Amino acid sequence: MSGSLSVDAYLRSVAGRVEGLLAELLSSRPPSGPGKLWEAVRYALLGGGKRLRPALVLASAEARGGDISDGSLATRFAVALELVHTYSLVHDDLPCMDDDDLRRGRPTVHRVYGEATAVLVGDVLQSLAFAHLLSADGPRATRLGRLLAESATGMAEGQARDLAGEHAALSEPEVMALMQDKTGALIAAAVAGGALCAGAEPAEAYPVGLKLGLAFQIADDLLDLTGEAAALGKKTSKDAVAGKSTLPALLGQEGARRRAEELLAEALSALEPLGSRAEALRALARFVLARGR
Amino acid sequence: MSGSLSVDAYLRSVAGRVEGLLAELLSSRPPSGPGKLWEAVRYALLGGGKRLRPALVLASAEARGGDISDGSLATRFAVALELVHTYSLVHDDLPCMDDDDLRRGRPTVHRVYGEATAVLVGDVLQSLAFAHLLSADGPRATRLGRLLAESATGMAEGQARDLAGEHAALSEPEVMALMQDKTGALIAAAVAGGALCAGAEPAEAYPVGLKLGLAFQIADDLLDLTGEAAALGKKTSKDAVAGKSTLPALLGQEGARRRAEELLAEALSALEPLGSRAEALRALARFVLARGR
Repeated sequence: MSGSLSVDAYLRSVAGRVEGLLAELLSSRPPSGPGKLWEAVRYALLGGGKRLRPALVLASAEARGGDISDGSLATRFAVALELVHTYSLVHDDLPCMDDDDLRRGRPTVHRVYGEATAVLVGDVLQSLAFAHLLSADGPRATRLGRLLAESATGMAEGQARDLAGEHAALSEPEVMALMQDKTGALIAAAVAGGALCAGAEPAEAYPVGLKLGLAFQIADDLLDLTGEAAALGKKTSKDAVAGKSTLPALLGQEGARRRAEELLAEALSALEPLGSRAEALRALARFVLARGR
Repeated sequence: MSGSLSVDAYLRSVAGRVEGLLAELLSSRPPSGPGKLWEAVRYALLGGGKRLRPALVLASAEARGGDISDGSLATRFAVALELVHTYSLVHDDLPCMDDDDLRRGRPTVHRVYGEATAVLVGDVLQSLAFAHLLSADGPRATRLGRLLAESATGMAEGQARDLAGEHAALSEPEVMALMQDKTGALIAAAVAGGALCAGAEPAEAYPVGLKLGLAFQIADDLLDLTGEAAALGKKTSKDAVAGKSTLPALLGQEGARRRAEELLAEALSALEPLGSRAEALRALARFVLARGR
């Protein structure tokens, strides 16, 4: 990203590339198929979204001098991560989970295609993520696969924590643990995986990603309190209705915002040694706090 | 397997090993955890089952002189395949899918832990499968991961076909395509993956596994018609009630049995060149037809 490019332009550019790669990935599948499975997969995958996680993968790889051209391992990992993220959204929206009707401004997958198909769409998106990533060879692909699988495990644990935490008074450490699993795991994997693609050790990048993931979740919780459904493309005030413990609920809006700013400052400070190549990554980090998903 | 060992003894021995490996895999997880996620995972995984797919992996590797000792890639793949198989059972049993109350003689996961937890149990089992398999390094692990991911994709497609085929009059080729995806993909992956673990080309072993998978599904459909819930540990006559097209429904019980016997004969004939080392694999192949899952 050159200094003159805004973070919005960077995100738009990544979103366009990712959308193209996802469409290409699905081009070998039938247009609809039994139970409209592939039609529903396309509906879930190609319906927009900011593609923040892929952008973090590419910016993190770029910050360390990695190859992010089409066909690179970094783009492959970026796409795989978006597949896992989308699977989690489809399943989270199910009636037995968060029971959401709206996602990215459109009816949720189960509202359009039914519950059974929505379960299968999530399932097959997870399988596709690994199939796509592992169609690359080499030890880095294997390590990325492990990173992806471990983050996906953490994410499901976080979702279980979230459901169990409804109408329960969680403490601050419990809320932080929940956020770390539910949102942090995948965002941390994006930053760490990008580093791995560039040949760097992911263990250094992971904590930076985790801080960004926590800041992101706090920003999202603040938006849930203050945002409007039309702007967000999904239902708001859900947390209060569900009686969920969030950091804004525990610390107040100002306290939560301060905590997010501290996390961002720590992340930015850890990225300083990377110099000007990390400009896009730093811009994305600031964006994470500026608005939600 | 020595000549004096029965296939029952072989399966019991594999089941014992797999159960031990699954328990070990879960030993690092909390006893219960948020939303009882890990408790429900244990309930789903450690509740018995014949472990036919892991047995096929090990027998297929053994038939080609591969290492099947504890810690080998073959046992890792066997466990990963059982994790994916178990995820599919938990999701297939959901109210929005087959709506089953009984599995392996016990209440299904969603009957005990609720629907939301059952969705997450299936999700996390799929993630764990890849995390476990890819904790091994090397190009074979990557290829096995790809095989596992592609079979899991096929399996979800088969399940979508199955749901779409309810109350529809499918033709014989449509029923064969359905069986090939739904059951064949994972059993073929077991036989092909075992071969890959032994350093053989999986492309040769895959068609043998596919024939066994089809024979297995026909045997299962016949059991659904003739078996008793108590003996099977699950509900019977489901297919007729759901109006599903099966091969026994299309060809009659005798016709379907003959088709399964032909498939078995073709598989056994393809295994002949492997000689005495393939004795266990051949015994398992015969067992596949002799009884269902």
